[in-house]
Amino acid sequence: VTALPPISKFPQVEQADASGELAEIYDDIQFTLRIPWVPFAIRVLSLFPAFVPAAWQMLRPQISTMYAEKGADLVREASIIPGPPPPDPRPRLRAAGRSDEEISKIGRALDSLNYGNPKGLILTTAWNEAWNERAAGSPANSLSAAEARQLPYGLPDKVEKLHLIDPDRAPLDVQELLRQAKDLFLYHAPASDYRVLAAWPDFLRIAVEDILSPVALTAEYEETARRIRAIARKHVAGFSGVGGVSRRQMSDSLSGPEIAGLTGVLFMYNRFTADITIAMIRVKQAFNGASSATANKFPVT
Amino acid sequence: VTALPPISKFPQVEQADASGELAEIYDDIQFTLRIPWVPFAIRVLSLFPAFVPAAWQMLRPQISTMYAEKGADLVREASIIPGPPPPDPRPRLRAAGRSDEEISKIGRALDSLNYGNPKGLILTTAWNEAWNERAAGSPANSLSAAEARQLPYGLPDKVEKLHLIDPDRAPLDVQELLRQAKDLFLYHAPASDYRVLAAWPDFLRIAVEDILSPVALTAEYEETARRIRAIARKHVAGFSGVGGVSRRQMSDSLSGPEIAGLTGVLFMYNRFTADITIAMIRVKQAFNGASSATANKFPVT
Repeated sequence: VTALPPISKFPQVEQADASGELAEIYDDIQFTLRIPWVPFAIRVLSLFPAFVPAAWQMLRPQISTMYAEKGADLVREASIIPGPPPPDPRPRLRAAGRSDEEISKIGRALDSLNYGNPKGLILTTAWNEAWNERAAGSPANSLSAAEARQLPYGLPDKVEKLHLIDPDRAPLDVQELLRQAKDLFLYHAPASDYRVLAAWPDFLRIAVEDILSPVALTAEYEETARRIRAIARKHVAGFSGVGGVSRRQMSDSLSGPEIAGLTGVLFMYNRFTADITIAMIRVKQAFNGASSATANKFPVT
Repeated sequence: VTALPPISKFPQVEQADASGELAEIYDDIQFTLRIPWVPFAIRVLSLFPAFVPAAWQMLRPQISTMYAEKGADLVREASIIPGPPPPDPRPRLRAAGRSDEEISKIGRALDSLNYGNPKGLILTTAWNEAWNERAAGSPANSLSAAEARQLPYGLPDKVEKLHLIDPDRAPLDVQELLRQAKDLFLYHAPASDYRVLAAWPDFLRIAVEDILSPVALTAEYEETARRIRAIARKHVAGFSGVGGVSRRQMSDSLSGPEIAGLTGVLFMYNRFTADITIAMIRVKQAFNGASSATANKFPVT
């Protein structure tokens, strides 16, 4: 009997494997949201035929606005877990020989993740609510000119695409850390964020063991997640058009199991995205405090 | 443009549509758990090939024990939402002309639902944890003789199968109530429980509007759900064998989208079942108080 690897890759369409229309949509999502990676939710939802193109077409005009940006800002600001702050990871990192330059690089990756995750929560909320025929925007809502203004298209200045380590090809100790990260919040696979942080395995260990383990699954964590999910729902209900598609609208192009599966995947990633938003903001808080962790680091002026 | 009905049936295999091996499993699940309906989770999971037979085969020897019964009891006892109790529905029911006999009949349906829902949470927890290769039992655990004792097989004395109203065939006002019930907790479709209560539409309205709306999505509700999910996880970790199958074990018989879909559906019903457990116990609490609502009404002696 061969020992099983600690983790096996969750089914998804990675950016490198996307082609044709899907590759274009992957780029368009990143450039519209101004984020340097394709969120895990999108990569898994892309397994289901026609859903991502249809849902993105509905969401794009909504999530490209300053109004949506404001919603992500509100989510970010509400993502600090009440109670004592996490321990500063820098002493351990320096003891492990990490230079200030490397530590800055980790900080910049966290800034991109923390800019994007709250936008991911707006996205998954809109898609989940629209799927279930609840409030995900309406033409009856009207935005002010400032709210309706379009965000600039493309990645923010000096931001480069993030590299996601492939869990199947990572060294076994990194695979084990990714398994820990997955299990800590009772999920099915490691978030993109952990695959990014896996470039610094000693830091990933600190993030998981020192910063996140003490708060994972606590009442305070769950209450923070409940709060930001509610903020996101309230915000997408104010979109000036429906930001997704309903299962009824897609019932001709999808089978029963596909409908059921999509329903579960949308539900799961709505929770998952709230949880990872809070986690990465806490990791940033450990370095630079709460106000830096909840700031929009790529504001549109 | 024709007006859309307020609800459309979620894909699932209803008991009346199950045949062959699946029909036998549906009966076996009900008789092993001693519950008079096939839980919604099972009906939806049955859309995916091979999963329910494989997962049930693993769970059956575990969930048929007094140890599992004790776990459901612990869940039930922890399912009261802190804070003021719900209003007594009987004055409104009597004013609407419902006899004491009819009110007793509602109470008996609630007793069956409240016996079964906590067992459903044990089931979905074991399947979800096993699917993601976490702790869902181990041969290294050993049960005492009393814990390992098998429950009697079959429905409890005087309990008859529950009738689930078909949402697609219900009168429009009942469909609208079922939609409200679905949306109240941000779900995809009405739980079996609401389809049972739909036999008394005036009571379903009281349950949704007077008893559940004031607490749905509150911090207290979510904290109660967090607590009972944790109780269920701790309990299934003590099973004397793994109570489910992992996605790795089923990766040869399922496609990528099926694996992803099952992952989402298992995650969703783990939450859903905790939420409906709390909801129906609160409805029973409104009639007879907390201690009656959390009692095991069909104890094995």
